[in-house]
Amino acid sequence: MPRHPRLDPLADRYAARTHGMKTSEIRALFSVVSRPEVVSLAGGMPAVTALPLDAVGSMIGELVSGMGAQTLQYGSGQGDPRLRERICDVMALEGITDASPSEVVVTVGSQQGLDLVTRVFCDPGDVILAEGPSYVGALGVFQAAEARVRHVPMDDDGLIPEALEQALLECRANGDRVKFLYTVPNFHNPAGVTLSEPRRQAIVDIADRYDLLVIEDNPYGLLGFDHEPMRALRARDNQRVIYLGSFSKTFSPGLRVGWVLAPLAVREKLVLATEAQVLCPPSLTQYAVARYLDTQPWREQIKLFTELYRERRDATLESLDALMPPGTTWTRPDGGFYVWLKLPNGLDSKLMQPRAVGAHVAYVPGIGFYADGSGREYMRLSYCYPEPDQIREGVRRLARVIEAELDLHSTFDAVDTGTFRAVGRPGATAEPIVGPATSDRIED
Amino acid sequence: MPRHPRLDPLADRYAARTHGMKTSEIRALFSVVSRPEVVSLAGGMPAVTALPLDAVGSMIGELVSGMGAQTLQYGSGQGDPRLRERICDVMALEGITDASPSEVVVTVGSQQGLDLVTRVFCDPGDVILAEGPSYVGALGVFQAAEARVRHVPMDDDGLIPEALEQALLECRANGDRVKFLYTVPNFHNPAGVTLSEPRRQAIVDIADRYDLLVIEDNPYGLLGFDHEPMRALRARDNQRVIYLGSFSKTFSPGLRVGWVLAPLAVREKLVLATEAQVLCPPSLTQYAVARYLDTQPWREQIKLFTELYRERRDATLESLDALMPPGTTWTRPDGGFYVWLKLPNGLDSKLMQPRAVGAHVAYVPGIGFYADGSGREYMRLSYCYPEPDQIREGVRRLARVIEAELDLHSTFDAVDTGTFRAVGRPGATAEPIVGPATSDRIED
Repeated sequence: MPRHPRLDPLADRYAARTHGMKTSEIRALFSVVSRPEVVSLAGGMPAVTALPLDAVGSMIGELVSGMGAQTLQYGSGQGDPRLRERICDVMALEGITDASPSEVVVTVGSQQGLDLVTRVFCDPGDVILAEGPSYVGALGVFQAAEARVRHVPMDDDGLIPEALEQALLECRANGDRVKFLYTVPNFHNPAGVTLSEPRRQAIVDIADRYDLLVIEDNPYGLLGFDHEPMRALRARDNQRVIYLGSFSKTFSPGLRVGWVLAPLAVREKLVLATEAQVLCPPSLTQYAVARYLDTQPWREQIKLFTELYRERRDATLESLDALMPPGTTWTRPDGGFYVWLKLPNGLDSKLMQPRAVGAHVAYVPGIGFYADGSGREYMRLSYCYPEPDQIREGVRRLARVIEAELDLHSTFDAVDTGTFRAVGRPGATAEPIVGPATSDRIED
Repeated sequence: MPRHPRLDPLADRYAARTHGMKTSEIRALFSVVSRPEVVSLAGGMPAVTALPLDAVGSMIGELVSGMGAQTLQYGSGQGDPRLRERICDVMALEGITDASPSEVVVTVGSQQGLDLVTRVFCDPGDVILAEGPSYVGALGVFQAAEARVRHVPMDDDGLIPEALEQALLECRANGDRVKFLYTVPNFHNPAGVTLSEPRRQAIVDIADRYDLLVIEDNPYGLLGFDHEPMRALRARDNQRVIYLGSFSKTFSPGLRVGWVLAPLAVREKLVLATEAQVLCPPSLTQYAVARYLDTQPWREQIKLFTELYRERRDATLESLDALMPPGTTWTRPDGGFYVWLKLPNGLDSKLMQPRAVGAHVAYVPGIGFYADGSGREYMRLSYCYPEPDQIREGVRRLARVIEAELDLHSTFDAVDTGTFRAVGRPGATAEPIVGPATSDRIED
């Protein structure tokens, strides 16, 4: 069963977009992280077993027994009207109080929402601005659309407005067609940082000044540890901001229910696009979410999730503080699922991966989160799924792996061990270790 | 709430593909067919209430209560392995005995399967061959991909092999890149006809001779009234035929579970494309289908569905035979959901629609099933959803509508009533009433 068949008789008839598709760094890890002896800090799986499974099971069973004529039947392409109403209630928690159910399109996870928005707006060669690093699943969508991604740096307060403005000016000078800014303002995946309050207004002001469309992707907004949800970008601008939401982190990812909130003219295009893609989202899963919001204590459940993730975040940060060798740095998330870690001495997280797998710990190498091949000295650590004790053990193993790499580095200083990029390789040009544009900014 | 906002501030920044998107003839009818006084022969909704809803409800409830850690969690992009095994069992009923679960990709309905195949193969301007008429949802996918559709005529035995060969020769002469043939061999939507046994072999031979890829879309194959399922095209050629399947008509469309069976090299591309589009299909709905196939009498249920649809088909054909004015012709399906009807005297089904709505009967105008604007004298009648008595009443109303149009035609023979195209309009060039390429072939 060849993974990359050499003799594909159809090789010459694929579409142009197909040639650029490649396996993500996360999927490439799948066979590793599913081994029971491996502590996985790689995946972003929510802790769904913290849900009241019996209650949710009865609820969904009754939806089929009692309302099978609706829940097992085709529905509207735009999504169930009752669910769209409840989605507006959810968004109100982040200050979006003017949204109408008619502006909401229900999608198969917010991934489909992003794909639809990208298909509706982007021709091949168009430019999308995105944080560096950015969500790996978004980069997959943009690549499939043959769009070009230009990364904009972040720091601990999220996307840097001045850098956004500079990127816009440069694109304008280049004659690039910038279709939108894609941003994850809360508890960023993978960076773990949150866009500060003053910067939110600054970004919206820039969008207004440069006539820039903003795609606000917000799966984690309600999962903050320390304060109330921040006001969404969409709450500040209802014409230039298209908002993507999801129930994957607040309820269940296995139902694949997300949504897009967009101005009516755009919403109309999105509905046509989703009808061509899936006809309509699954009815059963939509009814399940609407009924869950109607009958279950969903706000309390989010609080419970948040407490659980906070404990895991704490275990992660405490272990990192105690165990990581000097020179290693990382972000300190106050919500969401992720820590973004920078290796010391130019270590390369991708090249280090075999040693980590051998030590039974998994992470996602940083290069997966850049469209331009940078990010090699970074990695993403997810604390959402493993128990605190597993997290501590995982960080312990990771610390030993990094120390072993550093030892190797200092012992064979002038030898190319394969783990370092162009570090003292005899005869090679002394190439500086160049990180992503954010390399000196996204540290703790 | 403008449906077609004139002042869309983003109008100048949509992708090229977006400008071609338009509401389908079926969705345009939505507000009409949902009115209780209207007999709808328009929609293609399966009779899901014939399912054992209590048993299915308990089954799905238990899946969540007992297996929430799997059914509510993210799954594999390719789809649940157990479900893919059971899908191979289902396909064996149509003679596909060499399929491996590794060649199957689970999709959000077979609509997503067709979208993925089209995205993987088609660049803008590529040519797709498709029956005339063809499935309206497929035409939406091809339009979104900016592909050009060339229709190939059918008759009562389905796609005409000689016409396919002629189309291929003409495309070759034109320098067109033909990416594939899209065909619905069983109980065609909307034509209601089935590809005969000798023609199946002829189509596969042509595909081999012309190096043509074939997309076999087969949602209705198990819903035959008179004989065992026919052998699929894919059973005759496992390299040139990509097969699309669906549980929407044999179980439930509201779960949105379909699949693609493709050679491994193509399957790999399809998985990358679906990961970029939806990450993974919903877990709960996949587990529900797999459990249904494992524990419920699904073959007996299909038999029950078939008996029910046969009764409705009979009610349709008997009423048409008894009531339709002379000159009206229609196909006689021996399975599936649809009758394809041709109006007499060049009546235009789209222009006749307001009168039909006034008479409280709905159908889908034939132009929705052609990419080239032809099909005006045709309509699709669906008998899958209404009860036999409703069907008889609907056909009665439709017959009266057609008779009234014919009366109008004969009374105001020389006047342009708006219902006829270029029929005796004074001063206009006597333009012949040109039907689709199949106009003289697809009749009963």
